[in-house]
Order: sequence, then structure tokens, then C-alpha cells
Amino acid sequence: PPKGEHDARSMVFADLTRDEYTQVRDYMLGQKSLDLTNDALAKPSQNFLFLIELSLPKKKDALGYLDQNSPKPSREATAVVFHGANGQIIEYVVGPLPNPTYFKDVTQKRYNKTLPISARTVTIGEYALLFKFTRAEVYSKLPKLLKESFDVDKDKTINEFEQMPRGVKSGDRITWISFFRDMSGMYIHPVGLEVQVKHQSLNESEWTVERVLYNGRYFNTVEDLRAKYEAGNVSKIVYKETRDYGSLKPKVRPLQVPPLQYYPEGKRFSVENNHVLYLDWSFAFGLSSLTGMRAFDVRFKGERIVYELSVQEAMSVYGSVTPGMALTKFLDSSIGIGRFAHELARGVDCPYDATYVTTHRYIDVSAPVRFKNSICVFEHNTGQPLRRHFSDFFHNSYGGLVNSALVFRTITAIGNYDYMWDFVFYQNGALEAKVHATGYMSTSYLVEGSKKYGHQVADKVLGNIHTHFVNFKVDMDVLGVKNVFLTKDMKYANVSMPWDPSHHAMVPQLVEEQLKTEKAAALRYGTVTPRYLHVASRALNRWGHERSYRLQVTSFAGDPLPESAPEEKAMSWSRYKVAITKHKDAEQTSSSLYSQNDIWSPAVDFSKYIADDESIDNEDLVAWITTGFLHIPHAEDVPNTVTVGNGGGVLLRPHNYFDVDPSSESPDAVHIEP
Amino acid sequence: PPKGEHDARSMVFADLTRDEYTQVRDYMLGQKSLDLTNDALAKPSQNFLFLIELSLPKKKDALGYLDQNSPKPSREATAVVFHGANGQIIEYVVGPLPNPTYFKDVTQKRYNKTLPISARTVTIGEYALLFKFTRAEVYSKLPKLLKESFDVDKDKTINEFEQMPRGVKSGDRITWISFFRDMSGMYIHPVGLEVQVKHQSLNESEWTVERVLYNGRYFNTVEDLRAKYEAGNVSKIVYKETRDYGSLKPKVRPLQVPPLQYYPEGKRFSVENNHVLYLDWSFAFGLSSLTGMRAFDVRFKGERIVYELSVQEAMSVYGSVTPGMALTKFLDSSIGIGRFAHELARGVDCPYDATYVTTHRYIDVSAPVRFKNSICVFEHNTGQPLRRHFSDFFHNSYGGLVNSALVFRTITAIGNYDYMWDFVFYQNGALEAKVHATGYMSTSYLVEGSKKYGHQVADKVLGNIHTHFVNFKVDMDVLGVKNVFLTKDMKYANVSMPWDPSHHAMVPQLVEEQLKTEKAAALRYGTVTPRYLHVASRALNRWGHERSYRLQVTSFAGDPLPESAPEEKAMSWSRYKVAITKHKDAEQTSSSLYSQNDIWSPAVDFSKYIADDESIDNEDLVAWITTGFLHIPHAEDVPNTVTVGNGGGVLLRPHNYFDVDPSSESPDAVHIEP
Ligand SMILES: [Ca+2]
Ligand SMILES: [Ca+2]
Ligand SMILES: [Ca+2]
Ligand SMILES: [Ca+2]
Ligand SMILES: [Cu+2]
Ligand SMILES: [Cu+2]
Repeated sequence: PPKGEHDARSMVFADLTRDEYTQVRDYMLGQKSLDLTNDALAKPSQNFLFLIELSLPKKKDALGYLDQNSPKPSREATAVVFHGANGQIIEYVVGPLPNPTYFKDVTQKRYNKTLPISARTVTIGEYALLFKFTRAEVYSKLPKLLKESFDVDKDKTINEFEQMPRGVKSGDRITWISFFRDMSGMYIHPVGLEVQVKHQSLNESEWTVERVLYNGRYFNTVEDLRAKYEAGNVSKIVYKETRDYGSLKPKVRPLQVPPLQYYPEGKRFSVENNHVLYLDWSFAFGLSSLTGMRAFDVRFKGERIVYELSVQEAMSVYGSVTPGMALTKFLDSSIGIGRFAHELARGVDCPYDATYVTTHRYIDVSAPVRFKNSICVFEHNTGQPLRRHFSDFFHNSYGGLVNSALVFRTITAIGNYDYMWDFVFYQNGALEAKVHATGYMSTSYLVEGSKKYGHQVADKVLGNIHTHFVNFKVDMDVLGVKNVFLTKDMKYANVSMPWDPSHHAMVPQLVEEQLKTEKAAALRYGTVTPRYLHVASRALNRWGHERSYRLQVTSFAGDPLPESAPEEKAMSWSRYKVAITKHKDAEQTSSSLYSQNDIWSPAVDFSKYIADDESIDNEDLVAWITTGFLHIPHAEDVPNTVTVGNGGGVLLRPHNYFDVDPSSESPDAVHIEP
Repeated sequence: PPKGEHDARSMVFADLTRDEYTQVRDYMLGQKSLDLTNDALAKPSQNFLFLIELSLPKKKDALGYLDQNSPKPSREATAVVFHGANGQIIEYVVGPLPNPTYFKDVTQKRYNKTLPISARTVTIGEYALLFKFTRAEVYSKLPKLLKESFDVDKDKTINEFEQMPRGVKSGDRITWISFFRDMSGMYIHPVGLEVQVKHQSLNESEWTVERVLYNGRYFNTVEDLRAKYEAGNVSKIVYKETRDYGSLKPKVRPLQVPPLQYYPEGKRFSVENNHVLYLDWSFAFGLSSLTGMRAFDVRFKGERIVYELSVQEAMSVYGSVTPGMALTKFLDSSIGIGRFAHELARGVDCPYDATYVTTHRYIDVSAPVRFKNSICVFEHNTGQPLRRHFSDFFHNSYGGLVNSALVFRTITAIGNYDYMWDFVFYQNGALEAKVHATGYMSTSYLVEGSKKYGHQVADKVLGNIHTHFVNFKVDMDVLGVKNVFLTKDMKYANVSMPWDPSHHAMVPQLVEEQLKTEKAAALRYGTVTPRYLHVASRALNRWGHERSYRLQVTSFAGDPLPESAPEEKAMSWSRYKVAITKHKDAEQTSSSLYSQNDIWSPAVDFSKYIADDESIDNEDLVAWITTGFLHIPHAEDVPNTVTVGNGGGVLLRPHNYFDVDPSSESPDAVHIEP
């Protein structure tokens, strides 16, 4: 049985229920003036109700409710409508739940601008039209080429995977679509055909093929390619069977099963609604369809440490000589990170006897969808001590504590890549947010000049160099919302020895500094940053030191995109390993749903949060943490990138927050005396 | 049952058996000309047989034996004698085992110099004399002070812990001894008394107290302190009971036990003699009393990847205003890292049902000592997938593989600190060497000026700032001994788009370089180093790329000691995050037994391995990896530093070594189709 009791107030952060989604949908569809559709195959010219999700309460209201018995904040939803009919995207707040009576256009308030319809995510409806378009405008015009080069016929097809952004300037919706064999792990089976489709018009009959790439050569039209191909003026790709190297099917029979973990005396944690209890920890959780997994009101021994810990964005910049991937910059939250948190496989994705949580979402659908077992929660024995000491002189004794920690996990399979997201809660009051990448890498068909951009990983397949950058929001509240940002590091000082002043030595000294403004606390990649970074309270621990949590970032990130690039503002968070801003409800996320498709003029440019250079001295601070890794693909990325070594994260560690290590009070402690 | 078969040739790397130690000892004691003693309380003026350990075979001989059916190299021991009688340390090679017939002085050959007796480790015998000395020269002269300040009387004492190096120049043996309460975790109970003892003479009757520090004030003699103390001219420390905050005793009763791991179908690994089999892995192992844990002839699928992976050194540089710790630079292999690999606690240090290995050592003893269960080997289910992909469009399927890996571990409790050493063997052919620190930090009594050097962590106790640096030797042999060192990284290039040449964009490109000499490949901390570092063969994988293993270092190291410091040469390995040298049998270790006590003129200066700037182009390469962390102590280091966040390591990952991820052939793979 877990310590403590569940707190239903966590529901203030709960995702909408299936019923609530339906209520909001039906209420909005009932607004005749809006003329909305929830047809999952709605056309771009229609007014499509794309997304419904929880509208987070204002922090002040939530804290009042949690801490001061203020009334529960009104429960509201955000509804995103792609108004094809008038060329705009509008965000509505709808409330109160469960029986909505109002809806308000909050677009201007949230983004200080209108959102052009060209910024919208490509919906299932638009994909359906795109598939139809390529069938009509590409496939049907190239039957011979497709058969000879790719073995495409009435029984066999190839698949499409598109690159983003879709063009080079605001308003563009011109997408390079790459084609892949219709095999499992298609992403590592490029065939050598890419087609640039202009689907800017909301009227799909105006869409056009702009260019075609076949076997490394460009053609202005499909017809041109066909003509030259049939005239024998094109270097042909001749179809060959490929080994099914992307398959994840076991190649040998199971031998012995690997070691398994079990709870000999039952689970020491409990999940009720969206609230988790584990030893001294408690927290609320949610799963945004857009940004993914998040925790709120994270407490240790009853004290709130973190108001919000959330995934913000996963971004990759690719290099290639081929057109699709040459410009590719994926911003996953524009498609939806949490959207792709599918069912977790017991025994592989999480231990067999984890607790699995089912979630519901409403994004690009006509009705809410249930995702069974899409979150897992488990206690994990890491197989190592959290602390231990063995002594055999002066005193003979052994004391130790196994490092058993709670893991809260989702895995999101966004197209080719699967990101594993972990929040880990340790017995010493430390808390970690981690991400690891697995799944299929993106590849391109190997042509002249390819190898400047990666390594060959299969026959005619290049694994393209790319960066992985991930952003976490860490709204720590260390003993309340008024905090300061401190740095600590070492320096060598040439010191005279007090007992022998003629002797000097280089001695490490502690260097402490407070960074007082947002610009000072925006710590860029590529610069030397102090080794210890702390969100601190002015309150002192028993020994006179400011009570703090240290942010320890692990990252193997590549270079952020140069600021001169026109797409950079949509990923300006990736400049900073750590950036500290003054909390604002209006600055809820570092990225936005609209960043991918209007990357040149993004709805959210994180660097603006810093540009006003506000004071962060005794304010409500939010830390934005960027981690990631440079990925130079190699043969062993086939079939899948492995999680080992491919990740990053941030550890939030108490540093003079307590008077003593709280794990010293763990009931798991072991002590042996002779 | 494990795959493969054990190979008794691993015994070429096996530590000496109990019988072998005894044979060497008895043979050496039988050499009357040497006049040796094995009395564990031998005095410095005697000829003390300090150490016996395996003398590693020459690599060429070992490889001949392993790979070409050459005869087994002669089995030899190294015997270290502290020749107090003539003021020298001599290293002997003794062989052949099991019935030695020769001993050879190899000191000059190994170190190109003679080793002064002042470079020797302080033995148990010398400690006994030091304790006797402080009792006679300090305790007995200050009974009133010791009683009033520290409650010392016939029933109660204080304990000593000394700082190193012992002086400021070669030949010095002048040690600041700090005193601590006689409590468990004494290291965090400093009392405010330090005494500088000159024990340079091999005749202990010539030892002297040089200085005394009491409550932050220096005195030239004990008598002076006593006189002033009794005259009331000294600011007194008044004894107070202290909470037993260093105790590791559980403070609450066990509730539920944490999750446990078990092997539902038995162990998938096997340990026979010094040989381990685990799935596709095999390796030999040993445990040097000096440098600690090591693996040899590490193979994956039968191919040797690593000839030697070994711990080399653990070093810390401290800062303090107090005299002992102001100059402290601990070099643990001079005391012995493996020496302190004690029995591991089942269920805390390693899982309950790990395989435990008993070892024997001969260091600073009179007979070999047995260390029960001092190594553990276990397979660990990390609770996360090694790889996985979920697909629900075009193809519906799930494939994954749980990350279950073999861990080979020792934990060495060297005085205050416990280092946990792990070698981890993954199913994708990756291999990791990690270290984590736990145990008690070193502290000093809080006086005026202390806080420049750390944080207060208890009443009158300062946790002193310090660095942790650890060095690993990684002698990779990638498809034989002839290897090259390659680097890979990214750069942004301003590229014109082939389909629209007027449009330019910043596109990531792959940058590859070969570093061809030792100096070029000595990658310093504090400089920008390429992100990918590879030990490669000129042999190509199926896709035309040089087969390589990548070295991925995780480190949170502080600043290395400036090279201007006279002690730096003894730790010159710590300058380099990664340094690549050409293999030489004569360059077996990056540090030495004699570094601590002759730190100013060390027997091994690693930087000399590089100074000749040899070619590393198609040579036998050795990578020397430094990792560590800056430790700014905080209240939560009491009672013990926790392992979480306090570590570092190096991951050796296949990178185009294979043609495909070898874990794709794991029998643990799981695949689900609808
Ligand atoms: Ca601001
Ligand atoms: Ca805050
Ligand atoms: Ca050399
Ligand atoms: Ca080598
Ligand atoms: Cu990647
Ligand atoms: Cu430390």
C-alpha cells in the first residue's frame, strides 16, 4: 500500500474524458454560425474541427485551488478549427465543462496574430486527397517506369513519406514526397523517386506536380520524365528484390527468457485517476495530444518541487543531397507528439506487471479515440545501490540502499521514429526527465553526392545525418513560486598556504553567481556554461544555504541551426541548453502546433520569451531544457536505432534543499554489523 | 545454458591464486640476499614484501597463444619490495609459476629510474607507528584539551584520517593528519584538530610534529598549544554531543520490499574460472589490487573487440582553507583500488541472485587474503526496450526487444568513498565502462574562510569542493591490432538547392577526419572535440565503410589541475577526455603505485606516452578515457553521496562494424501483428 493518500484535486490537470471530448465536439458542431464539420475526411476548404484538448487553468487559479481552498478553476477545452472557408486557423476556448455554454476565439490573445490556414497540419483528409492526387498525377502516368523500377502494379504499390517544411517561405505548401517500398520499415527502403507537389490551394483541383526526381535526376513534369524514360534517355533504376532487412520479426526462436522483475510484496505505488503516489512522491499527470507527456504538482514529502514538467518539442534537422531531405526540419508537436502514444507492449516497452493507463484523445478524428495502455507506471529496481558504504577500519559496518525508482513512461511513434519518454522519481528526492530514440531512421536513395550527408546503410540506401533536439519545460517551484537562478562552479586560485605563506598552490575554490535576467540566464549551446545550475529559494536550509534544486543536463546534441536560417525562429529554443524565463500563462509552450507548416513565421518564437529580458530575481521561474544528440547513421541503425547511447535528459537534484539526504529515511535501507 | 563454450585460455589473464601468492611469497622470502620480511607490521626500515600480483603477459605473446596456438606465455608475478634497508623500492618479476625459479629486478626497465623509498605507500606497519606516535606526541600531551574539546578519555577516542600528498616536494613525507569523531561515518565528523607529522625518516624515533591546527589557529608545537590553551589564550572548541548523522542504520522499519529481479528460466550467462559467457559475448577478467577491475579478450560473436578494458586511476583534487585538504590530491591506485573490493551485499550492491566471485589478493599483508563475493556478475533487465517500433499506417505491426544486459561489477571502498565500477555488455554489441561514486565525502572542520571552498553540511562541518577524475584504459582491437583513429562530426554548409539553384540553405554535412599522431589525438578537456570518435579498421563493412567502434564519453568533470602545478605530472592523464596512444607493453598503466607519495616526480607521467608523438595510423591503438564529475558538496551528501547523477563512463558502440544491428538476431525479439 502506498504512503499518503490520493488527492482528487489533481483532476484540475486531467485530460478531457471521452465524454468531455464529445460534449465539446457536439457543442461546437451545434454552433451553426461556425459551420464546422467533424468529418475525418474533411477537405481543406471545409471548416474542420481538428483538435480538442484540455485548456490548462491559469497557474494562479490552480495554485489557489490546490493551496488556498480557492474555488476549482472552471474546466475548459481548447478547440482548434481549420477554417478552410475563410482561410484562417482559430483557437477557441470552450467551457465550462461538462456542459459548455460559451466559446471564445483566443487566437489573437494567445499568439498576437492571426493564424493563416497555410500553417495548419496536414490532416487525414488532406492526406487522402494527396494520395489520390499522386495516384492520378504520378502513378497512372508512369505505369511502365513504376513497374520496371519499383515492381508497382495492381497488386503492389509503393508508399509515400513527405518531408517538411513544405517550401521555403511563409504561405508555401509545396511538399517533396519521397517514395518507399511497401515493406515493414519502409523508411529504410527508399526507391529513388521523389515528387514535389504544390498543394497550396484549398481547392485540390488546383494542385500540381512541380518537379520530379528520379534516380538523382530532376524533371519538370511527370510527362517529361515519362517521355525521356520511354525514349531511353534516362538512367533507369531496375527493380531488384530486397532482403526484408527492415523486418523486426525474430530470426531465431526464443531460448531462455530474460530476467524479469516482480513485486514480491505488491506495488508500492498507486495510480488513481491522473494521480500517482509512490513512497514520498506524488504527482498529477496528463498527456497532451500535441506536446505529449506531462506531470503537474510534483511533490516530495508533501512539498511541491515542480509545478509542471512537460515535453515540449522534438525536432530534427536533416542533411541530404536529395531534395526532400535537404531541407527537412521536423517539428513533431505540429503533428502531435502525444497523439502517437500508442499501446505499450508488456514486457518490452515496460515491465510485464507495470500499471498501464488508458487515455483518450481528440485530434484529426470525428470522435474521441481510446488508446489502451498508452502510459505505463512501474517501480524499477535499477540493480545498483543508490548509496552504500563499507567500512572495515575503526568501524566495521555496511550500510546501503538499493536504487529502486518509479518510472512514468510513454512511447510515441511519430512516423519513423519512436521516442521513449521517461520521468523517473528517486528516493533521494531527485527527479529525472529523459528521452531515448528508437524506431526507424529516415533514409534517402543513394545518388551521386549522397555520402557527404551520411553513411550507406543498405543497398542504395543512405542513412542521412541529422540532429535530434528535444525541449522540456521544467516549471520548478522551490518552496513557492518566488525563486532565483544560481550557478556554481569551480576555479583554481593561487593560494598561499597559511602555515607556510611562502608556499603557493593552485587550490579549487567555489564560484557562485546569481543570474538575474532572462538574457543572462539563456545559456547557449556552444558556449561554456557554469557546471552547476540551480533553481533556488531565498529560504535557507539548516546549514545556512539557499535551498535549491540543481538541473543537470545530459546531452550529446549537434549544432543548432544557424540563426541566419529562415526556419530557425521556429526552433529558437534549441539554441539554449538551459534558458530561464519568468513564468507567464501566455508562454505555455516553447513551440506550437503551427510551427511546422509556417516555420518561417511561427506562431511561437521562443526567443521572444527572453527578448524582453525580464528580471528573474525572486520571480516564478521556468527552466526550458534542451537535450538531444547528433545522429550520424550507421549500418547498425538497421533495422532500428537502439536506445542505448541515443538519448538525453535532465536530472533535477536536491542541493541544500534538505538538511540531509532524505533517502536516509527510506524503509529500504540495509545495515549490517559484524 | 549460455551460448558458446568457456575457453581455459582466459587463464592467461587470471589473477594469481592463493597458492601462487604463497609460492611467490615463500620463494622471495627464501632469497636470503634480499633479507625480506612479510611481517604485516614491518617497520619502514625493514625490507617489506608489500605486493604480489600477476605480471601481465606481453600482448604479443598472449595474442600468439590465443590466436595462433603459440605456447602459453610463462606465468609470472610482480613482487614489490619496499627496501627500507637501502632506501629503495624495487619491482621484481618472479617466475615461472607455479614453481618460481627466478626473480629479476625490473624497476629500471619499467620506470627508467630508480624508485626512492619515499615514494612508497604508507603500510599498515607505518600506520601502526603513526598511531603510536600521535598517541605519544599529541594525545598524551593534551589530555585536558582533548577531554574538553572532544570528550577524549580512556574510554573514548578520536580517529585519524590523513591527507595526501605528504608535503610539497619530492622526498617529503610530512603528513597533515585530521581528526574525526569515533563514530560511523567519521569522515563527516571532523573535530577541528589537525597535526602535521614529519615521518620522513625510516627511523620512527626521528619523527616529529611540525605544526598543529586547533580551531583554525596554527601552533608550532603541541606544547605551545597546550600552554596557550591552559593559559586561556586560545578560542576553545567545547565538546557537544553530535547527532549520529553519519549512521546508515535504517530509521524506519521495512515496509514492503522493493521489486526484485529473477531468472524465470535460469541464468543466460556463465562464469567459469575467470571467463564469462553471455549470449554472444565472452571475456576474461581480473582484479588488480592496484588498478582494480579489468576485462581482457572481450569478444562478440567470437570476434575480439577489446583486448583490455581496465580501470586505471581514480583521482580527486580538493579545495580547503584548512591545511590538510588545501593540498589534497588523492591518487587511489597508489593505495590500491582493487585492494578495497570487498564483499558485495546481496540485494543492495548487486541483485540477490547475481553470480558472485571470490578473489584473493596479496597487498600489505603477510599472507594472501580471501575476499568472498567481491565481484558480481548478473544479467539485468533495464526495464526499457533496446529498440522498438510501432506502426499503424501502411503496415500494422509492432516489433521490439527488451534491453537486457550483462553487468560485471566491483565496488571499492577506498577510505571514505565507494566507487561502483560497472562493465556492461549489451545485445547490440555495445559495451560500457561506468563508474559511480557513493560513500562518505571528505569534510573539514568549519573555520573562518571555509565557505570559499564548499558548503556547510552539518554543525561546524564543511563539505569541501573537489573533482573526481577516473581513467579507463580501452585497448580496442577492431579486427586485429592494426587500427586507425577517426573522427566524425557535422557542419552546416550553405548549399544551393539542385532543383532551384537560386535558393540556398544551411544543410548539415558529415565531416570526417583521421587523426594520425598521438598529439593530434590527445583530446583535451576544455577544448571542442569532434562529437564522434572511432577506433576503426581499414576493413570495410558490406556498405563500404570502415568498420569501427565509437567511443562515447559521458563526463561532468571539473577542471583538471593546471599544468603549472608541481603535482600535475602525476595526473597528466586527466588533461585528456580521450587520448590515443600506440600500444606498448611498457605503457601498461596511466598511473602508478608510486604516484601518490612522489607526486612531484612520478614513476609514470602519462603525458610522456604522447610526447613522442608516434604515428597512430594503422597501429595498435589504446584509448585512455577520462571521465568524472565536479563535486560541490551539499547537505544531501550526508550521510552518503548518492550514485544518481554522480558518475561517468564510456560507451563503446559498433558504428559500421556490422552490416546490420546484431540485436536483430536476438532470441528475445518480440513481434506482434494484428
Ligand atoms: Ca520574458
Ligand atoms: Ca516556477
Ligand atoms: Ca607514444
Ligand atoms: Ca588496440
Ligand atoms: Cu536519429
Ligand atoms: Cu565527491
